[in-house]
Amino acid sequence: MDVETLVLVHQLYGAQSHYIDEGRATEWAHTFTPDGEFHSPSYPAPVVGTAALAKFAEDFAAQPGVTRHVLTNLHVTPADDGLTARAYLQIVRTLPDSPPELLRLTTITDHLVRHAGTWRIRRRTVRRDDTKENR
Amino acid sequence: MDVETLVLVHQLYGAQSHYIDEGRATEWAHTFTPDGEFHSPSYPAPVVGTAALAKFAEDFAAQPGVTRHVLTNLHVTPADDGLTARAYLQIVRTLPDSPPELLRLTTITDHLVRHAGTWRIRRRTVRRDDTKENR
Amino acid sequence: MDVETLVLVHQLYGAQSHYIDEGRATEWAHTFTPDGEFHSPSYPAPVVGTAALAKFAEDFAAQPGVTRHVLTNLHVTPADDGLTARAYLQIVRTLPDSPPELLRLTTITDHLVRHAGTWRIRRRTVRRDDTKENR
Repeated sequence: MDVETLVLVHQLYGAQSHYIDEGRATEWAHTFTPDGEFHSPSYPAPVVGTAALAKFAEDFAAQPGVTRHVLTNLHVTPADDGLTARAYLQIVRTLPDSPPELLRLTTITDHLVRHAGTWRIRRRTVRRDDTKENR
Repeated sequence: MDVETLVLVHQLYGAQSHYIDEGRATEWAHTFTPDGEFHSPSYPAPVVGTAALAKFAEDFAAQPGVTRHVLTNLHVTPADDGLTARAYLQIVRTLPDSPPELLRLTTITDHLVRHAGTWRIRRRTVRRDDTKENR
Repeated sequence: MDVETLVLVHQLYGAQSHYIDEGRATEWAHTFTPDGEFHSPSYPAPVVGTAALAKFAEDFAAQPGVTRHVLTNLHVTPADDGLTARAYLQIVRTLPDSPPELLRLTTITDHLVRHAGTWRIRRRTVRRDDTKENR
């Protein structure tokens, strides 16, 4: 994998959490492809497509307090028709005048493809550390 | 933005927390321009200029226990006369024989410019997640 | 230091925690040189060599719950015969149906050398924030 690809993917993940955490729902949705999928055991059904993803991000930002998606340990490897990216994602919530609370630690596995000249997430799979199927 | 710029900025942030957390106050101050500014609601007034920034870092290191500035989610974008960098900065303190304590989660927005052949912080603005004006 | 070296080292650390946290013990051991050394005050003696390192990683993965090595603040500098890498490493454990627990925050200092066409860790030194000798 070339250096430029790796740096661009790092920038994608550098941006993504800021988008959802600041309520920039459309920008967050556009880090996925138009048919992008978000699969997480924290939610009852997968979220699929730009409109549904933007709605998901809006709902997230409407929660009480400030929630941050702290992303670390990004690892990028080649995949058949794109890239696979793995990372740890900590969900940290702070209520006014309170210390931050680490709600959960999750692992994300993303399938990335090229779309409109940028790397986008085609499918995200989230695993939670607090469940049995967590590795 | 070119790849080399992004990698150099990542290195700047890789180094900066180690400097303040290890009491290397002068090195920390020199990650700012000579007229650099540090604005944070955690302190009564902005800290401006190399001497004041070094004094600030010395005072920080003199606190009890070990304090770490855990920096994640770095995102770099072009600005009019330099770069803008955003990141999450968690302040974690550990007292002897105790577990670490996440004191607060903050968001930093830095204005970066070239100075003496390196990227330096011209102005840092810190926002705390535990206040109302936190986005 | 050239950009490609920095990106490769970032990838090494991006991969390493996933290896030990997923029980991929041999892959974790191979992020060290064949004579690689792991020195940590959390364990009674240094761990030296591929076989011992792989055994160490296996034992780690056999612990109850899910444990994640959250790595941040990576800083890479040239050394006499290779590179020095420093980072913060948080050990976070999650038991089933429980919130994550930040067990300890450590600082790692690694000596990296080229081996078999890749950057490997020749010697890792871990310091814990909860001890007196912690800076």
